[in-house]
Amino acid sequence: VEVKKMSVPSSPLFTDLYQLTMMQAYKKSGMNRCGACFDLFFRENPFNGGYTVFAGLLEAVQFLQGLRFSEEDIAYLKTLGLFQDDFLKYLETFKFTGEIYSVREGSIVFPLEPLLRVQGPLDECQLVETALLNTINFQSLIATKSARICHEAGEDNVIEFGLRRAQGHDGGLTASRAAYIGGCVATSNVEAGKVYGIPVRGTHAHSWVMAFPDELTAFRNFVKVYPKNSVLLVDTYDTLKSGVPNAVKVGLEMKECGEKLAGIRLDSGDLAYLSIESRKILDEAGLNDTKIICSSDLDEYIIHDLKIQGARADMYGVGTNLVSSKGDSALSGVYKLSAIHYENSPWEMKIKKTEGLKKSTLPGTKQVWRLKNKNNEMIADWVELDTENPDFSKGVLGYHPVLEYEKKYYHEITSAEPMLECVFKEGKIQTEFPKLTEIRDYLKAQFKTLHPTMRRLLNPHIYKVSLGPRLHEETHRLRTSNV
Amino acid sequence: VEVKKMSVPSSPLFTDLYQLTMMQAYKKSGMNRCGACFDLFFRENPFNGGYTVFAGLLEAVQFLQGLRFSEEDIAYLKTLGLFQDDFLKYLETFKFTGEIYSVREGSIVFPLEPLLRVQGPLDECQLVETALLNTINFQSLIATKSARICHEAGEDNVIEFGLRRAQGHDGGLTASRAAYIGGCVATSNVEAGKVYGIPVRGTHAHSWVMAFPDELTAFRNFVKVYPKNSVLLVDTYDTLKSGVPNAVKVGLEMKECGEKLAGIRLDSGDLAYLSIESRKILDEAGLNDTKIICSSDLDEYIIHDLKIQGARADMYGVGTNLVSSKGDSALSGVYKLSAIHYENSPWEMKIKKTEGLKKSTLPGTKQVWRLKNKNNEMIADWVELDTENPDFSKGVLGYHPVLEYEKKYYHEITSAEPMLECVFKEGKIQTEFPKLTEIRDYLKAQFKTLHPTMRRLLNPHIYKVSLGPRLHEETHRLRTSNV
Repeated sequence: VEVKKMSVPSSPLFTDLYQLTMMQAYKKSGMNRCGACFDLFFRENPFNGGYTVFAGLLEAVQFLQGLRFSEEDIAYLKTLGLFQDDFLKYLETFKFTGEIYSVREGSIVFPLEPLLRVQGPLDECQLVETALLNTINFQSLIATKSARICHEAGEDNVIEFGLRRAQGHDGGLTASRAAYIGGCVATSNVEAGKVYGIPVRGTHAHSWVMAFPDELTAFRNFVKVYPKNSVLLVDTYDTLKSGVPNAVKVGLEMKECGEKLAGIRLDSGDLAYLSIESRKILDEAGLNDTKIICSSDLDEYIIHDLKIQGARADMYGVGTNLVSSKGDSALSGVYKLSAIHYENSPWEMKIKKTEGLKKSTLPGTKQVWRLKNKNNEMIADWVELDTENPDFSKGVLGYHPVLEYEKKYYHEITSAEPMLECVFKEGKIQTEFPKLTEIRDYLKAQFKTLHPTMRRLLNPHIYKVSLGPRLHEETHRLRTSNV
Repeated sequence: VEVKKMSVPSSPLFTDLYQLTMMQAYKKSGMNRCGACFDLFFRENPFNGGYTVFAGLLEAVQFLQGLRFSEEDIAYLKTLGLFQDDFLKYLETFKFTGEIYSVREGSIVFPLEPLLRVQGPLDECQLVETALLNTINFQSLIATKSARICHEAGEDNVIEFGLRRAQGHDGGLTASRAAYIGGCVATSNVEAGKVYGIPVRGTHAHSWVMAFPDELTAFRNFVKVYPKNSVLLVDTYDTLKSGVPNAVKVGLEMKECGEKLAGIRLDSGDLAYLSIESRKILDEAGLNDTKIICSSDLDEYIIHDLKIQGARADMYGVGTNLVSSKGDSALSGVYKLSAIHYENSPWEMKIKKTEGLKKSTLPGTKQVWRLKNKNNEMIADWVELDTENPDFSKGVLGYHPVLEYEKKYYHEITSAEPMLECVFKEGKIQTEFPKLTEIRDYLKAQFKTLHPTMRRLLNPHIYKVSLGPRLHEETHRLRTSNV
């Protein structure tokens, strides 16, 4: 019951204009069918964090599989006066025929390593840049934010409530998907339930209470309809003086009928204080099973703080700051050419050099190896040209990707897993895509292998991404050459 | 050639679960056909700014017009085990029959005043909350950000380049629309060109340069295909040592053939310094007409600063920070019940009280009047119950919406324009919707009537939103009553 419809339509106009003008110019220059390799990667973890969660792959490859120019698309492009007839004709039968190598969705990933390697004819790889970046940047960002929030919530569940503050209809839909991958247990977004099979949950709004003559009548009417799963919102008039006492009244009435008030929701005010006081009132009335759900502009920092203060929340509803990614509203993933080959020639490696080393890129067609020790702990990610066959049993040398003089010897490597796998080839998705719950579980399992210091909110430990000797050598050669 | 397709699909599942559970519970409580009035408003201008631009109305009413539950939607809801058959049956023929009163799209708006008044059967108004908020929150946020950026750019044009960092496919599409309303002259997003008729523009990527054996060859090949509108990206290897000199070479070659190099683009490094130096080099070569376009993580603050430093940019490309709204990633618009009437009874006013006055709401069905003086300058917005017929010729009394003891007399009012107009009624959009360019021009014209101190980035002047005497009275009565 996973994906019932595509959320990303495969419109090739879901791109920047320059991709199309470059495509035409590649064609005019006889370059369009050159083989190209592009890397999709990012330079910094968002939120000053210690890791990033990779998400959005399913939508990305679905987009590639369905990519066709409609007559209407071509008619529109013609109106721009930029494209010649032979090029527009060429677009009529255009398909993406390249190959995608990708890390698994739900992987923990780090700066500078390629997450996606796109290989194929230069013009095809160029066209799809925008859609791939859009999809993966956004979902990875939200999955990361969700993982951060859920980590701070610890054993308590987090529900994603963000649709009203999300960026458009499918912005909301894919945010719900990514939030679920990151660890949320449910969403309020009904369409995300239908499309992705994510559990949906909800309470009620202030308007429910305001629509009735008084709060108690409103509560009674609600639980009558949902005797098994009512969560009453208690802050419409006065949380401790009116909302909680009325909820208790209703909870006791339910108890008498053998029912149970599932929970109350606190949505404003001092949540630490109010949750502690509400818990006392509920417990004193014998409603020990009634849970407390907190919402109201929560994020990982506030939840961290609520925990420290001993807040008695059992569950958190997080909306705005999750789906709009407060703190870092974009993951700055980029897509850079790393190698090219002209007809029948071997791959030629390429880098971008300007702005000093900070913004430069890594050349060649690469593989990322995740190194682990005998305790199944992640030691480092080791990036090397994919033409190499490294022997990890004797340890490997790793170079800092920017500070070339820094190197490190990795030994006692018990496992070295190649992270990039072919997921798209000859116009088709290559793997059976895991279910969303499997992606979520995969992420959870990986977190167990990541040292907890990497998950700190403040000054997290920096996980190492190192270059293998051959990649280091080629990078150095190109950095110091005169292009 | 305005809207060729809807970007917001009219799925009623584009909602939070609790709207549907409340709908069913309203029905069970005999309340669903009560008349309700909801206000959509926000409490603070984003970015600590002095104003907000209202956008997203077209998508919002298109959504309402098309709203129907499909068989598939109902089948999905049935699987949740929350809804009874009679309610699911009721959804089969559900339509939104309410009325929408709204300020014009492209209006400058302010905190606490209703932007949208939704009136109709309680359950219908409840269902549409999420979609209305999503659409209007997001587009208003981006239109505001765009207006801020374009204001700092002054006479220089701003192009929106954000699709790769936007939040999904339609997040990007509607961001382009809102950015255009806010003042951008064009977008890189091709689909936004097709769907909304927004001018599309672009340069080329680093990959273009890297795909060729050297930069000069790459530039020559590009201008050959686009002799009239080539903008060369000069920072792939070294801006001043390689990129600009190569662009000059090509520019001079073009000049010899009677052509003109349209521009160069600076995409990294110290843009103030590089633009000044590049301008010198271009001018010394006689390429005075070749423009300089700056990009690279720009926002309103950086552009403000570039201007102060005398940067020689002619145009700005702004992406990430515009479409993902750096600084405030969400506009916190809310949707609150303000009045209700049971069968054949008069309207009963409602407020939410908790959290002190800061988060309370304003009761009743209201109108917003924009007051101007004889110089056509905006004086204040004056909110009053819509049953009143104020006589502005003698001046009116206005009360602070929160600090009840603060009042002010507005006199010499030359014009008082009612801002909320009926835009949707009896299932249909009521007005001929303005073209996107008209919405954009309307905003521009309004900015001429707004004192420039409201557009300051730091500590802007606060525009006054006041309550009329009747609304003040009712608000005070409900705030001090025991609900």
